[in-house]
Amino acid sequence: MVVTPWEVSGNIDYARLIKDFGTEHLTDSLIKRIEKEAGESHFMLRRKVFFSHRELDVLLKEHDEGKPWALYTGRGPSGKTHLGHMLPWFFTKYLQDAFDVKLYFQITDDEKFLCKSDLSAEETHSLAYDNALDLVALGFNPKKTFVIVDTDYAKTLYKIAIRVAKKVTTSSAKAVFGFTNETNIGMVFWPAMQAAPCFLPSVLEGRPIRTLIPAAIDQDPYWRIARDIAPKLGYPKTAAIHSIFLPSLMGPGKMSTSIGEHTTIFTTDSPEEVEQKIMKYAFSGGRSSLKEHREKGGDPEVDVSYQWLRIIFEPDDTKLKKIHDDYKSGKMLTGELKQILIEKVNAFLKKHQEERERARDKLDGFILKD
Amino acid sequence: MVVTPWEVSGNIDYARLIKDFGTEHLTDSLIKRIEKEAGESHFMLRRKVFFSHRELDVLLKEHDEGKPWALYTGRGPSGKTHLGHMLPWFFTKYLQDAFDVKLYFQITDDEKFLCKSDLSAEETHSLAYDNALDLVALGFNPKKTFVIVDTDYAKTLYKIAIRVAKKVTTSSAKAVFGFTNETNIGMVFWPAMQAAPCFLPSVLEGRPIRTLIPAAIDQDPYWRIARDIAPKLGYPKTAAIHSIFLPSLMGPGKMSTSIGEHTTIFTTDSPEEVEQKIMKYAFSGGRSSLKEHREKGGDPEVDVSYQWLRIIFEPDDTKLKKIHDDYKSGKMLTGELKQILIEKVNAFLKKHQEERERARDKLDGFILKD
Repeated sequence: MVVTPWEVSGNIDYARLIKDFGTEHLTDSLIKRIEKEAGESHFMLRRKVFFSHRELDVLLKEHDEGKPWALYTGRGPSGKTHLGHMLPWFFTKYLQDAFDVKLYFQITDDEKFLCKSDLSAEETHSLAYDNALDLVALGFNPKKTFVIVDTDYAKTLYKIAIRVAKKVTTSSAKAVFGFTNETNIGMVFWPAMQAAPCFLPSVLEGRPIRTLIPAAIDQDPYWRIARDIAPKLGYPKTAAIHSIFLPSLMGPGKMSTSIGEHTTIFTTDSPEEVEQKIMKYAFSGGRSSLKEHREKGGDPEVDVSYQWLRIIFEPDDTKLKKIHDDYKSGKMLTGELKQILIEKVNAFLKKHQEERERARDKLDGFILKD
Repeated sequence: MVVTPWEVSGNIDYARLIKDFGTEHLTDSLIKRIEKEAGESHFMLRRKVFFSHRELDVLLKEHDEGKPWALYTGRGPSGKTHLGHMLPWFFTKYLQDAFDVKLYFQITDDEKFLCKSDLSAEETHSLAYDNALDLVALGFNPKKTFVIVDTDYAKTLYKIAIRVAKKVTTSSAKAVFGFTNETNIGMVFWPAMQAAPCFLPSVLEGRPIRTLIPAAIDQDPYWRIARDIAPKLGYPKTAAIHSIFLPSLMGPGKMSTSIGEHTTIFTTDSPEEVEQKIMKYAFSGGRSSLKEHREKGGDPEVDVSYQWLRIIFEPDDTKLKKIHDDYKSGKMLTGELKQILIEKVNAFLKKHQEERERARDKLDGFILKD
């Protein structure tokens, strides 16, 4: 198992990640507190799609006391947006709607340019604005959502980043991110740019505002540096809530375009592409023959179609349980399970693609400018 | 002898620096070419105050062919401006006036914040605008002079700097600048910010514009990285013309506030302070007794007052020669020599301080904004 901000491979052992990264389990009692404050439940909490956190309890206590806080998450624009990228965004929208807080969304075109040898700065900049359409399409509150494209907001970010960078030695950045002497000097500095939005709300409003980061757990190392630095700069430590990865169509691990376009579903895929990809590639927990499947049943734990329903596309627990039980008993075949997912994904994408086109006119209002 | 962008100490052997740094001697024939193109001579060329260069010959050839070029120099705002800082500025003004070219002047408040543990970002930012007054006071062409305060022009600089940074490994930055694993990650990245203005004129005008950097030779390592990178980014290599250091009042080496305020003269010093400092501290090439001085004469080569006249304050070769000969013969005493320098410095500072106050209203027009 390898889990870094740049690579996720092998069979992911999430319990071990909590131990290795030094984060905390998202306990049932903490989930209940979120739901109570939020006024509504969310299936990603009930199903432990979000499973780990840092100081979420502190943030909730402050929220009780009326202290302000803000959400911060983002996207590295190395290609088109796929469903795996959007997993934390769905949950972030739930949090923004429930708590009525500001969201700062950082699109790291500088990082993707610096770490991808085949991408030009023009390409990552263009991808940043393309990817932002997917965020806007989800219907985030336009008055409280601020999209940061790093190279277009660098004046403000850089001023904060140098304050962070002054407190981080090269050896510390090497240890946390696995940098070597061959790493380019832009990447070595870049964790400071990634940390900057943790403190941006406090800087912009001139009062302490803790940030909460919903993100996949592989991004956690960035916040460890931001958290170490926070007290030295006089800002609140960033809290975090960590999700699992949406598995690739091909099976366990994180969905990633770099493995191959056929293992992912993009937000711009046509209904036919979605159907083809899921039918052809979605890893099945079914048996090798119809007869055996009817007798022994399938395994929903490894079946990607079932997992996608569980993680994103079937919010209704009762319906999900029926799918689970029918598949496990052998009553439901893999082809039928896949068909359920295809319908769910295509229904989502139909609406999303319409909203995505409408987002082109709205986007400028979301972009933070300095 | 230690000569790096951050430290200059020991007895400076300029011939060895040319060899160590791999620059070229500024030959008499090249000086003649500059003077011919410029239409007038400059005492700093005749006296080899500027003594080394990189590809100045290439730049002059292109100038002959009508190709555009621009000047680039700057200032690290770690304290008040002193006369040593201004040495290259006087010569830069000669070049701007003679060749009617644009000057980009970078004030590196980010670097000084990053490398000085006792300076806050607010302090270096404030010093940047204070130091800029000294540049404006010298009468640079307001239509062709662009002052860059790094943190206030970071959006444009960062976009160029990441293109540079992507081509520079950590080990290469370590080798050139003596960085270690204990160096903070802001400093490791910073050479890319320093290199950015080399390419800025080409970026802003959308056509290749070579830059020429007049600077003290200790700054040369920055341009080596910029020069290595230039062809990879498709920009002309930066040319350079290097000066010696103005010696400290206490004797050989580079004048530096960090040694002690009494070894330098600031642009804001009063006539009394100037007189006191020179009378008390200016290292003398005189003999230990009046009798011995009259008999054997003084040594203008080590006398700081004489050297300051030679390097900055007595442009008239005939007058300088008379001072040299009178001092060397013993006809002129150290006190008399110091008095000549005091008058010259105070005459300069009287006018400079008036212009410096006027510069407060003009400054904003010089600042490059993004």
